[in-house]
Amino acid sequence: MLITLTTDFGLDDPFVAMMKGVILGRSPQSRLVDICHTIPPQDVEAASLVLQMAAPSFPGATIHVAVVDPGVGTSRRIICLAAHDQLFLAPDNGLLTPFLSESGRAFELSNEEFFLQPVSATFHGRDILAPVAAALARGLDPQELGPAVPVSGLVHLPLPRPIREKGQLRGQCLRADHFGNMATNISKKELASFLGPDEIPVIRLAGTTIIGLSPSYGQKQAGALALLNSSDHLEISVSHGNASRELALCPGTPVIVTKKG
Amino acid sequence: MLITLTTDFGLDDPFVAMMKGVILGRSPQSRLVDICHTIPPQDVEAASLVLQMAAPSFPGATIHVAVVDPGVGTSRRIICLAAHDQLFLAPDNGLLTPFLSESGRAFELSNEEFFLQPVSATFHGRDILAPVAAALARGLDPQELGPAVPVSGLVHLPLPRPIREKGQLRGQCLRADHFGNMATNISKKELASFLGPDEIPVIRLAGTTIIGLSPSYGQKQAGALALLNSSDHLEISVSHGNASRELALCPGTPVIVTKKG
Amino acid sequence: MLITLTTDFGLDDPFVAMMKGVILGRSPQSRLVDICHTIPPQDVEAASLVLQMAAPSFPGATIHVAVVDPGVGTSRRIICLAAHDQLFLAPDNGLLTPFLSESGRAFELSNEEFFLQPVSATFHGRDILAPVAAALARGLDPQELGPAVPVSGLVHLPLPRPIREKGQLRGQCLRADHFGNMATNISKKELASFLGPDEIPVIRLAGTTIIGLSPSYGQKQAGALALLNSSDHLEISVSHGNASRELALCPGTPVIVTKKG
Repeated sequence: MLITLTTDFGLDDPFVAMMKGVILGRSPQSRLVDICHTIPPQDVEAASLVLQMAAPSFPGATIHVAVVDPGVGTSRRIICLAAHDQLFLAPDNGLLTPFLSESGRAFELSNEEFFLQPVSATFHGRDILAPVAAALARGLDPQELGPAVPVSGLVHLPLPRPIREKGQLRGQCLRADHFGNMATNISKKELASFLGPDEIPVIRLAGTTIIGLSPSYGQKQAGALALLNSSDHLEISVSHGNASRELALCPGTPVIVTKKG
Repeated sequence: MLITLTTDFGLDDPFVAMMKGVILGRSPQSRLVDICHTIPPQDVEAASLVLQMAAPSFPGATIHVAVVDPGVGTSRRIICLAAHDQLFLAPDNGLLTPFLSESGRAFELSNEEFFLQPVSATFHGRDILAPVAAALARGLDPQELGPAVPVSGLVHLPLPRPIREKGQLRGQCLRADHFGNMATNISKKELASFLGPDEIPVIRLAGTTIIGLSPSYGQKQAGALALLNSSDHLEISVSHGNASRELALCPGTPVIVTKKG
Repeated sequence: MLITLTTDFGLDDPFVAMMKGVILGRSPQSRLVDICHTIPPQDVEAASLVLQMAAPSFPGATIHVAVVDPGVGTSRRIICLAAHDQLFLAPDNGLLTPFLSESGRAFELSNEEFFLQPVSATFHGRDILAPVAAALARGLDPQELGPAVPVSGLVHLPLPRPIREKGQLRGQCLRADHFGNMATNISKKELASFLGPDEIPVIRLAGTTIIGLSPSYGQKQAGALALLNSSDHLEISVSHGNASRELALCPGTPVIVTKKG
């Protein structure tokens, strides 16, 4: 069984390895994949974006464990969400917002039988999430993790959605990758429905105007360009450069799309 | 068989991967877990602290390989220590100090039959430790790695121990984690034996005074707090902050505990 | 089957994990090893040096996947090179230069049957290289990846070669490791053939002169030293120091070797 790990634990401490030791001690056949451990400390939204990008590349039945948990030791719940044919284990702090939907079902982790004992107040990743992931990998039904009734009232992050108004499609920058390419919250689908046949988008952000979409990073000789990224969202790039730095883009920078016939 | 790796090789060079290639070439069924590769260069004590934290989360029979080796190519020994139901492979430079005990037995790696040939003078991780780990994973008895007699006179690091004097328990700061939480060398057990019933600790360090223990990081609204961490040691934290930076704590900063009735 | 990954994707994005998800979804038994993901963005030469160091430590039949791909989305080819009993998957941009030889055969990846559909224009690592690696791991013959005829005219990087002239062996610095040790492009073999019996090398670089070779890093009390590194190349080091920084060495710094009887 495939288990992924996403945390804000960084790369200098043994915490991730400790979770892996617990998982492999209880489920030696599990395969572990690190998604990211350099989520900015306690940045639940960044973790949700990264996991949203990564999850679709994993096969069905993958168990995703995500630990960005400013509330560790308080009364916040830990949940197991069954959605999109995969399982997601995380604190109920909004981290799983992108995966919440009407068809998903979430169960609270409360049956201590599956926890490490004693449970520390400061490291639920090791003491609760890791052993529960191992139990699920060995075939446990998520319903047995606590009350068999799905929990409701899950915490949702207020993820910004693009809006259409007065002939504009208005979204915002979300996150720059390692190359400085800045993803926005405008999806391919939203852009396509906004544009009429033969219309091309005019994209304005932070004082830069980009006309039309480029097919890929490598095509244009120089300057700012816009394209649909590998997660099917509008992304801003600079040929042979770093768009985030050179165009002064931050998460939250407004993106305004109009159209040209 | 589970093999862990702890080094000061960093993340930019292929050295860790080269060790993994050697291990998996000789023991394809081994499962590898990285504990940490960003130990400060040649900081044997930091490696020993990280491995001390991590090892208890791994199952019995795990083989821990640790390579922080300022003396590579000199006459320092490399040893295999059997302790706590696990095996530890490392240079005999004090790295394994936390695992040395009367019941443990250490064997010198000197039987070249298990080494890569020729052995380089500069990369014993690849040429000695990796192939020996693979041989152990395939079932070799540590006694066959060299003389069947356990070695003595192992190098011990002078790990600082807390002392009790004149109504004080005096320890020191050891290591800050990625969140800035600073672990000390005062264990839960030492603290408990120092405090009488109904007494609460008063902790002074670097000009800060903390009264009492918090149950977890997430409980207090703001300011410095002390708690017992997930490795059962006294730890200093700042709610929603970075204790190491904000309280000016370094490894070695004295920690003085008194009590209040 | 063993699959290695080398990229310039960094450690903060989910891109590497997405490739792993695709590989393990299609070839669940594959074993994955990260070689390096912190190759400087789009530095094809650095990637080729790192992979050249790492590959010999891996067993036969290992599949090496390398994605440093400034031309993604343009017409550059992606190839599968069979050489040294291993397979190498990478864009045809010179990254595989160290492995090109008369006996190696390279095939172009053009059979879309093995790709993820639809193929994005910006992430061929996920959509082409990962699923092809999985197919090869499951036993596909590289000839079936596209035209059965090996491709020719592969891109070669102009890797600098040492030259012998007027009693000098002249090479250059290539790459510093995490400890600051600076590897050069002068091999053990070239050095041996340059030196007569009983002659010792005198090495000059960036104003520093080093006489003779040291057997290892740990031998000398202080100062600059030269040795043959674990990849059998001349390397410059500083005892208990950082040669790259302290001696002001960069990739490209000339290294001049003369001899002393």
